[in-house]
Parts: sequence; structure tokens; C-alpha cells
Amino acid sequence: MDKHIAPVELEKAVRLINHGPTVLVSASYNGTDDVMAAAWACALDFTPPKLTVVIDKIAKTRELLERSGYFAIQIPNLSQLALTWAVGSQSLHQVPDKLQRSHVELFRIAGQPVPLVAGCSAWLICRLIPEAHNQQVYDLFIGEVTGAWADSRVFSDGHWTFENADARWKSLHHVAGGHFYTIGDPVRP
Amino acid sequence: MDKHIAPVELEKAVRLINHGPTVLVSASYNGTDDVMAAAWACALDFTPPKLTVVIDKIAKTRELLERSGYFAIQIPNLSQLALTWAVGSQSLHQVPDKLQRSHVELFRIAGQPVPLVAGCSAWLICRLIPEAHNQQVYDLFIGEVTGAWADSRVFSDGHWTFENADARWKSLHHVAGGHFYTIGDPVRP
Repeated sequence: MDKHIAPVELEKAVRLINHGPTVLVSASYNGTDDVMAAAWACALDFTPPKLTVVIDKIAKTRELLERSGYFAIQIPNLSQLALTWAVGSQSLHQVPDKLQRSHVELFRIAGQPVPLVAGCSAWLICRLIPEAHNQQVYDLFIGEVTGAWADSRVFSDGHWTFENADARWKSLHHVAGGHFYTIGDPVRP
Repeated sequence: MDKHIAPVELEKAVRLINHGPTVLVSASYNGTDDVMAAAWACALDFTPPKLTVVIDKIAKTRELLERSGYFAIQIPNLSQLALTWAVGSQSLHQVPDKLQRSHVELFRIAGQPVPLVAGCSAWLICRLIPEAHNQQVYDLFIGEVTGAWADSRVFSDGHWTFENADARWKSLHHVAGGHFYTIGDPVRP
């Protein structure tokens, strides 16, 4: 594993998504891996850490996470803007080599059930908490975060350090149609 | 109503929160108004537009929205950083004059059931879609957006225009403990 990747305490794991970044969702089942982008992911609880993510019925990633019971939420950065857009605008159903075309490199952390996207700023592995009504009616999935890691060059001591990192580490915040903003400057009340 | 406040088409309403800002939640019942901050709000659907927001059981705002069946999600900006922190760190249960102390000025749009916070960048009025299991187990509330408005100085033609607006209009993205980031620069893949 890359020497910059460090575990994040579970009680601080939701800080990785608290500022509302667009995320990548990955899942794997029976030898098939998929990765998609999602702007609609959100923290749900601190302890144990939980989150929500909205995943359309057309996404292959959805089928994989429903079958395996696990998924990963990861925080892409400015250096992955093209990758994020590419995995968010193609479906593995129509484009079987979507991951290669999108230049996605997957890696695994020993003992963990989900492949992760190399080069992200942070990764949260989640166990699906099945909620059939939410999944069917709202496409809304709930996960309990069972492990979290971040790149120490942009997250350390429980905080993002965007202001001290190279600009390529900035998180992405999608509005619509490929119109993204990066995260900006720190402010304190 | 302020001449800069313009309606946003409902089919574009979720763009107001798609980039993951920290929001203010307001609700009113039987003459009592409350406003709180929430970092855990997220789009859920495009048409009709829906969103989720996580609201702890200790919040008076929760009681008001459960009783009235309506709430508003609004997007505060850098000029409201102190206000956002103040309404997020006090409860109306303990601090009856919380809104005055936090310098919150409320206004109403004619015919709308929820008071709104003046000076925000955008406002979404929502009808609560009752989901007792989500509310009790996860503190998770679902709203259908029934009306949306934005300040034309920072949102126009269906897009945020942070890059052309004064810095005071930038949205706020909370990490933890008063550590916020503003939104940054536009990027396109």
C-alpha cells in the first residue's frame, strides 16, 4: 500500500465527506468491479459512522453492492477530474471496458472486501445496511463505515489540510453537466 | 421581497445543494420559529425535486417541522459565517432568544408556509414526506421541494456564479468543530 495512505479513526471518518464533495462509489461481486461518480452522498451518523448515497437503478455498481453487501465511498481530487467525469458518464452495462477507458487503477487493502480507486484523497469502506423501502422507492442506500483511510498529504490529525497541499488534492463539487467547483479556502467563525 | 431574489425552476432546484454546502434549516409551528445549521443535507431526486436532511432529536427545529409538515433549506454564505455557527451551536430549547442573539432576520415569501433567513444565497421550501422509520431510526428527513429561489447576484441561468460574485457570496462547507472551507474555483473536465 502507498506509504502516504494512513488509517482514519472511525469516530472521525465522516469528516472525510462532511464538506460535501462529489465521491466515487466502487463495488465488486463475483469478479466484476465497477466504479461510478455520485454527487449525492452524505454523512448520516457519527458512531458508528454511517452515510447515505443515492444510486440510480441503471448503475451496474448498484447491482454489485446489493449482491456483495459492501461498497466504498472515496474522495477524488482535482488531478482526477477527467476520471471522475468519465466514470460518472458511462455505464458498465453499455461500456464493458469503462474502467480501462477511464484510466481507473484499482487496489485493495488487505482483508477489505472492496476494490479502491488509486490516487483518491480518502476511502471509506462501508457495509450495506439493507433498507428495501429506501432502496426501491428513493434509490437511497445506507452504509455503515467499517474502515477509513486518507492520504496523509491532504488529511492529517483528523482534518483536511487543503490549504497546505498542492492544488491537485482539492476535492471536487459538482453542480450539473460537468460544471464543478474545487474546495476553496479555510475560514473560522 | 428583495429585488435580487429570483425563482429557480423546480427541475433545476437541486443544483442549489448539489455541490454539498452546509445549509440552514428553518421551520415554524404555532407562532414559534427556529433555524439551525446542518452539514448533512443532500439531494435525493430531480423530478419532483427531493432532498434529505439529518436532524437530531434535540433540535427544536425538528419538532416544528414534524408538526407543521414543512421546512426550508437555505444556503448561507461567507458573510453569514458567524450566524451559521451561532444557530448551529445553540438550541432554542436552552436559549429562547437564540435567533435574536444569532442576528437572524426572517422574511416570508407570499403564500409560502415557512419563514426564511434573509441574506442567504438560496432557499428551498420543502414539504415533509413522512417516513417514520427513517426519522426515528436514522434522524433522516425527506422533503419534496415545492419552491426554490436564489439571489441573482450568485445564481443565475441555472448555475452558481461564485467566480463572478463578491467573495462574501461563497458557500460554506463545514468539516468539524468550526473548521469550514468556502467553495473554490470552477473547473471543467
